[in-house]
Amino acid sequence: MKFTIAEDELNEAIQIVSKAISNRTSIPILSGIKLDADHQGLTLTASDTEISIQSFIPLERDERQIIELDVPGSVVLPAKFFSEIVRKVPTEQIEIEVTENFRTLIRSGTLEVQIVGLDPEEYPLLPQIDGNRIITLPSDIIKSMIRQTVFAVSSNESTPILTGVLWTISDGIIKFTGCDRHRLATREARFDSNQDIRANNIVVAGKTLNELQKILPDQNVLVDIVLSENQLLFKLQSVLFYTRILDGTYPDTSKLIPQSFQTELVVETKKLAEAIDRAYLLSREEKTNIVRMVMSDRQTIEVSSSSSELGKVTEQIHVNEISGELLKISFNSKYMLDALKVMDSEQIHIGFTGSMQPIIIKPADSTPLLQLILPYRTTN
Amino acid sequence: MKFTIAEDELNEAIQIVSKAISNRTSIPILSGIKLDADHQGLTLTASDTEISIQSFIPLERDERQIIELDVPGSVVLPAKFFSEIVRKVPTEQIEIEVTENFRTLIRSGTLEVQIVGLDPEEYPLLPQIDGNRIITLPSDIIKSMIRQTVFAVSSNESTPILTGVLWTISDGIIKFTGCDRHRLATREARFDSNQDIRANNIVVAGKTLNELQKILPDQNVLVDIVLSENQLLFKLQSVLFYTRILDGTYPDTSKLIPQSFQTELVVETKKLAEAIDRAYLLSREEKTNIVRMVMSDRQTIEVSSSSSELGKVTEQIHVNEISGELLKISFNSKYMLDALKVMDSEQIHIGFTGSMQPIIIKPADSTPLLQLILPYRTTN
Repeated sequence: MKFTIAEDELNEAIQIVSKAISNRTSIPILSGIKLDADHQGLTLTASDTEISIQSFIPLERDERQIIELDVPGSVVLPAKFFSEIVRKVPTEQIEIEVTENFRTLIRSGTLEVQIVGLDPEEYPLLPQIDGNRIITLPSDIIKSMIRQTVFAVSSNESTPILTGVLWTISDGIIKFTGCDRHRLATREARFDSNQDIRANNIVVAGKTLNELQKILPDQNVLVDIVLSENQLLFKLQSVLFYTRILDGTYPDTSKLIPQSFQTELVVETKKLAEAIDRAYLLSREEKTNIVRMVMSDRQTIEVSSSSSELGKVTEQIHVNEISGELLKISFNSKYMLDALKVMDSEQIHIGFTGSMQPIIIKPADSTPLLQLILPYRTTN
Repeated sequence: MKFTIAEDELNEAIQIVSKAISNRTSIPILSGIKLDADHQGLTLTASDTEISIQSFIPLERDERQIIELDVPGSVVLPAKFFSEIVRKVPTEQIEIEVTENFRTLIRSGTLEVQIVGLDPEEYPLLPQIDGNRIITLPSDIIKSMIRQTVFAVSSNESTPILTGVLWTISDGIIKFTGCDRHRLATREARFDSNQDIRANNIVVAGKTLNELQKILPDQNVLVDIVLSENQLLFKLQSVLFYTRILDGTYPDTSKLIPQSFQTELVVETKKLAEAIDRAYLLSREEKTNIVRMVMSDRQTIEVSSSSSELGKVTEQIHVNEISGELLKISFNSKYMLDALKVMDSEQIHIGFTGSMQPIIIKPADSTPLLQLILPYRTTN
């Protein structure tokens, strides 16, 4: 293998596939990035067995020559050192040449680096995905869906299925659900597909979705998602992102969500979030994060928290209108803040069914997003 | 005590004095900030016994009313919670009122916070400093002197005196020295004083100087430094910064510095730093940080490092000129990088006295700055 490549393009591709490199892999070759150079271009592959990422750099793009290929071939190079040295080479061109025993020479200006490479034949094969069932979504919608649900997944590894986000697909609508037994977040979106796709037990690890979110482009490009038995494949312009589907059955959460409310209010998202944040400062010191909300009249809620050691925070918030029963309710302020942070609408709607029942938060606009928080039982 | 104050001014003063708050103090009242309001203005005080910081806010500044004083008085408030709540109040004005038992009310808009305050009488007194011996330096010079020497102090608490920076003062010149037995950094500056001040055993903790650096203004204002038996006091416009002088005798480092060189070279600072950084990437993996420098001819040095596991980095660097004996030398690349990072001149001068003797790095301009690095003994 021997080729010359533009530093910026190689660097960008390395940054993308590096998201699949685990610091503590038990399979030594997976601490490397596989390079395959052929007459189409250069393909970089990295994997931690849970997720695998492949990034492709063509020989030419937009009439700019990116790669000058001399000899096709493959090698596996240690990810951390390779990525650091490529980021810091002194010129804009890098020559990469594999010599005997996969010893690889990297040259840039007067810099020469020899890297001990590994045999690409020993690199595991990527999952074979049968490309039948495909849904198509804009990348910015996928990013929003992840951001608005993934924070609610459980971090407790003793119930692995709850560390993932459930995908429910039917009637041209895909729904993400994140839930950790104390709170739940769902977000829906319409998708395009040339067939009737249904699924109700695809669960994708939260940390996988966090990595995916980082490489999804901010521009609104279409992403094809290929669904198979136990893998998903996200197809971006020059990137393939593979992830395993979690084993197990996701609990039925549909009965958690109340269908009607005893009390409803509409409030400015930012105003409520800032007040809860101030009450959170104190509640955090008590480790409980308990904040109390009292509806004093049809236009005012009082948010408060207290700590025996530090003191008390109390704040009156003007709300647009409270309909139904005026109530007092306590909840985890951290969970409420997390939910409010992902609300993009200026106003939100909050529904209550009594002080011991779930609190439901929705944007005042039509975004199909729902946040549920279980209240605390308190003595008064 | 009762007054109303502009949020931005209070916030800024809290940020400054908070640098003296330690997270693990054994004296509970020192986790608080002392507030003293009188007819001059508001004084905030914080201390961890090593350093103490006082910040003063006048009632009025530049015809802007900052404080409206109702009742003078004092209180001690828990630093962390007080500082967070002040940063997040909903309006630009804050009212602070101390009621019975130092219970303090903070009001801003519809927010009311009650804080359990402490008795200011129990707060320790600040050191009394006799204001006789004063040297005056511009704040930007003090910042440079700290930045260029403090990184070289020892982090090893078993020799406490080396965790500090030595101040040597004589003939209108002040010199800072940082040294950890493997490297040494010195920086000098002229100062103004109305008397002949001499000192040779003032040692100030490195971490104290790091905190001081953060609150020194970037604008070029004059700072009076008052020297006493066991304390220093830095007088800024509205801030007083007290620090203890470390106990013990600083070792004599003057004999370490060679008076003449066998080999001298001049090189572009950035070019050398970038090459050493690339070699460091590999040397770091070997834990030794060893980088080798070989003078191939009068205009070229080769910088290299190698790792049995990963490979080898080699780079040729063009230098302006090498005079004297061509030599091979090995050193700690991390120490060299630290030294090069604080060189503000475009070119540097490096002097050698053989491969087993200290390396001396100086800016090519006239800044009185010197960096010394001990070489590694290697077998070839």
